[in-house]
Amino acid sequence: MHSIVELQDIVEQAIKNVQYPSQPAKLYEPISYIMSLGGKRIRPVLLLLSSELFNDDVAIAVEGALAIETFHNFTLIHDDIMDNAPIRRGKDTVHVKWGVNNAILSGDAMMVEANRHMTRLDTSVLKDVLTCFNDTASGVCEGQQLDMEFEQRTDVSIEEYINMIRLKTAVLVGGCMKIGAIIGGAGTEDANLLYDFGVNFGLAFQLQDDILDVYGDPVKFGKQVGGDIISNKQTFLLLKLKELAAAEDLAALKSLSGATDYAHKVKTVTRLYNKYKIRDLATAEMERRADIAFTSLDKVNIRDNRKAELNMLARSLINREH
Amino acid sequence: MHSIVELQDIVEQAIKNVQYPSQPAKLYEPISYIMSLGGKRIRPVLLLLSSELFNDDVAIAVEGALAIETFHNFTLIHDDIMDNAPIRRGKDTVHVKWGVNNAILSGDAMMVEANRHMTRLDTSVLKDVLTCFNDTASGVCEGQQLDMEFEQRTDVSIEEYINMIRLKTAVLVGGCMKIGAIIGGAGTEDANLLYDFGVNFGLAFQLQDDILDVYGDPVKFGKQVGGDIISNKQTFLLLKLKELAAAEDLAALKSLSGATDYAHKVKTVTRLYNKYKIRDLATAEMERRADIAFTSLDKVNIRDNRKAELNMLARSLINREH
Repeated sequence: MHSIVELQDIVEQAIKNVQYPSQPAKLYEPISYIMSLGGKRIRPVLLLLSSELFNDDVAIAVEGALAIETFHNFTLIHDDIMDNAPIRRGKDTVHVKWGVNNAILSGDAMMVEANRHMTRLDTSVLKDVLTCFNDTASGVCEGQQLDMEFEQRTDVSIEEYINMIRLKTAVLVGGCMKIGAIIGGAGTEDANLLYDFGVNFGLAFQLQDDILDVYGDPVKFGKQVGGDIISNKQTFLLLKLKELAAAEDLAALKSLSGATDYAHKVKTVTRLYNKYKIRDLATAEMERRADIAFTSLDKVNIRDNRKAELNMLARSLINREH
Repeated sequence: MHSIVELQDIVEQAIKNVQYPSQPAKLYEPISYIMSLGGKRIRPVLLLLSSELFNDDVAIAVEGALAIETFHNFTLIHDDIMDNAPIRRGKDTVHVKWGVNNAILSGDAMMVEANRHMTRLDTSVLKDVLTCFNDTASGVCEGQQLDMEFEQRTDVSIEEYINMIRLKTAVLVGGCMKIGAIIGGAGTEDANLLYDFGVNFGLAFQLQDDILDVYGDPVKFGKQVGGDIISNKQTFLLLKLKELAAAEDLAALKSLSGATDYAHKVKTVTRLYNKYKIRDLATAEMERRADIAFTSLDKVNIRDNRKAELNMLARSLINREH
């Protein structure tokens, strides 16, 4: 079995080896561009890890890993258009660099490339893998739709928020795990347990992200602490605060929504989070989801020593400081 | 074997029976909307016809037909955004009705739905069908990219134009034929002959469209005659005229490009087409492509009487007046 670092290398090398057509250049250059921006490649590594639980030959799953990473980056191109985002991983977004029309079309071509990778998998697993992949992709679209709709609403419940991040983020992690398991030759029950692991781990990961945005170490976090507060993003923390806060605190919160003194805004909202112990509540919810995830992983019918690497990666990602 | 009308009914009924999720409404309503706008359903009917050449049970190909029609309508949603088109089949385009962001995302979800239909086909044909479908889908994206780029250029050659319509339009027709053939159980040679038939027929169809835009009967054509002339669209006719016209006629043509008296513009450009016998040249090219198409169809290794319906449909579409 491979270490995480080795799997990351396999993914990076496989991405480098992909050859897109050279023409039309404006269709394919954005795809090479966004694929080369890096990132932690967590999703494809999870897919490979999941396959390796059941089959020592990790090579059989590489096209699946490429499909997932390509699909994920396609969603980033289209999401960045919808969110009007200028920067992705420190570089211009595709629509800033090539224009919106080109970004729409390159995204579409990238979705096709993702399917092309998936279709190269062994025929025996193709139907099950693609069924899972399509369900996953629909879920991601639904999550993005809800995320856009929530921006226009002030009455989003925590239940709705959890459902949104489940679709937008966690279902894709679940999909990676299940697809990897199917490729590796897992039975239905194990594949579904790994799906449950992935979804709940994905939820825990996103909740940790919400917490780190406020309480992360500014140096280690790598992005502006308080970014969610500044943009009034409806995270678990904000929704929980709205649920618990007294009338005068809610009024103070409301009066801050348009504030332009960001340092003051971040400080004041953080103080409100502290007052209502929002961090503890968010951490408890995060840990609850992580527990569900690891319980599912425990139930997977293979020897524990084969799960060690996956266990370690998942725990490090949930306990991360950046 | 079924008649064209029966196959159209099968396609319409299958489209009506598709149930999209009810939520999020704004994600799935645009999909139902554009799928219900109608059209001739030529592509799915061709796919069913192609499958029926080899297998009497047309039901085995219906999910393929749905996949192709769903994919085609997805490209219409995204193309209409890129082309800034307000009207599609006499109704508001999706981005006018739901906004650009929603139209991008519903298009994405629709691409997933197309793959979902395709994945329901029999496991034995899945890999070959999806490989062809992915190649086709890439081609369509490449064609749309070239079409957008050509709008910014004044030096497009006829060869480039034919390559663009091949990718944007004809490859999808070829894909329908090949996918239908694979589902029906055709061998590789027959499937490829039907692909060649579809591509060349698709080219002939598009060239006929270019001709009808200028020379169609205004009543039967159903859209404004001369629409391509008014919008300075670089069609086979315009590119051929540019190739052949004398300097003073080219100057006259250039001076008309910004004309606002559309009736005068259409009349004058048509007169130039007549002067250089552009209609005959376009018709000759159209017939050349149709001949290649029907020669490929002739070579398909099945009895001629099984090809009768397909032959009839293809000839009627090429000799159509609308």
